[in-house]
Amino acid sequence: MQQLTLVSAGPGDAALIAPAARAAIANATDLVAYGLYLELLDDLATGKTLHELPLGEEVKRARLALDLAASGHSTALISSGDIGVFAMATVVFELLDRHLQGDGGHAQWGNIDISVIPGISAMQAAASRTGALLGHDFCAISLSDLLTPWQTIERRIKAAADADFVVSFYNPVSKKRDWQLERARDILLERRPAQTPVVLGRNLTRSDESITLTTLGNLSAKGVDMLTLVSIGNSETRRIDNNDRSWVYTPRGYSKKL
Amino acid sequence: MQQLTLVSAGPGDAALIAPAARAAIANATDLVAYGLYLELLDDLATGKTLHELPLGEEVKRARLALDLAASGHSTALISSGDIGVFAMATVVFELLDRHLQGDGGHAQWGNIDISVIPGISAMQAAASRTGALLGHDFCAISLSDLLTPWQTIERRIKAAADADFVVSFYNPVSKKRDWQLERARDILLERRPAQTPVVLGRNLTRSDESITLTTLGNLSAKGVDMLTLVSIGNSETRRIDNNDRSWVYTPRGYSKKL
Repeated sequence: MQQLTLVSAGPGDAALIAPAARAAIANATDLVAYGLYLELLDDLATGKTLHELPLGEEVKRARLALDLAASGHSTALISSGDIGVFAMATVVFELLDRHLQGDGGHAQWGNIDISVIPGISAMQAAASRTGALLGHDFCAISLSDLLTPWQTIERRIKAAADADFVVSFYNPVSKKRDWQLERARDILLERRPAQTPVVLGRNLTRSDESITLTTLGNLSAKGVDMLTLVSIGNSETRRIDNNDRSWVYTPRGYSKKL
Repeated sequence: MQQLTLVSAGPGDAALIAPAARAAIANATDLVAYGLYLELLDDLATGKTLHELPLGEEVKRARLALDLAASGHSTALISSGDIGVFAMATVVFELLDRHLQGDGGHAQWGNIDISVIPGISAMQAAASRTGALLGHDFCAISLSDLLTPWQTIERRIKAAADADFVVSFYNPVSKKRDWQLERARDILLERRPAQTPVVLGRNLTRSDESITLTTLGNLSAKGVDMLTLVSIGNSETRRIDNNDRSWVYTPRGYSKKL
């Protein structure tokens, strides 16, 4: 049977890739990924047929993975982080859905045996490296307005502010987009203190990881890029400075019970 | 140096535990966990001193882990899912924060070398088993009003409805709480269709896993318990029925570019 596995490669550190993800890659003959992700896999990719398509070619990559699987190649489509979170899995299902409605695709797409291996997403990597920012209710919002109207994104940021959610922004800034992050900051500043802790995590859990703790009031788009995850605390998130370490955590309120 | 590692054991399947988590457990002499989680670790726990405290004793468990580490035991505190998401990590930092302000704790708590290993949370397991529900902006809300006033929770559900977030409810129902989930459903029904796909995942990725796909209109607290994760699509989430499989996914809108 035709097999397609949608595989999460985690935030970067090989020790954070689930054994199920490694096994899925080991069992595939064909790997489809953005080049950067393949580098992370090292020896796992040896002997496989690699299909690299650049960033921005998400639909082509998903279509290629479906076509390879449909033509009998055991295929792994790989995304960094969690492939189900702002990543390739939804593109595959969107194409499959259209195909089943008669709109495009290979005649065998509907017979592919698809499975999905989840992984650790960037917001979780950022939280773990700095404490427990996601300890209470949170949301994740992509600031990319390539596919989603800015009006929709702004409505979500306002709702996140109303809800006092911890907020993680994916795709916060790109070469062509630099004002969205500061607009988002200004919306959040209407509802939570300027001192609210913010975590900027770039290349999280990789050898060139950089993590910056700042505040909502001091957040700017400078130094933030496509490889950066921006997480903002809620109104109760606290920063701890102890010895040479700093931590941020969002309490669930256990101390009320102490 | 005193070492405390906060370890995520993932949703259940051993193949979804990160190698970094296994290594942290292997390197510890003392494991602190709720009994159920220790069972999942099988052979990893062999030869370790096990400290089991029942569910509901979160503060005691965190304090015990800090005390063990402070007294020189290399300690791993273990939660299922992601220890940073509605789990034990934030309890540890809340206690540490209070200690550093002079409020309780062991004299050596401030010298403990703490690290956190992230993991795959239940909402990610649910999404991966059923497609790509978390493909676009989403939030996670705990429905437990033991530590958070219901008023705050309800405000967050309303905001999630306004934002059209995919919503995952943690702790949806317990023996003592059964009305919150249906109240949450009614709030969401004001803003999204009754046909909106809903995923109920119980014991996700375990041998006794059960997954139910239903709709927002048909969601009820019956058959939902503390071990169930409830994820609700946004207004664009779609269900695919193909051969003997059903999938749900939340599009990012790539089809507009096709």
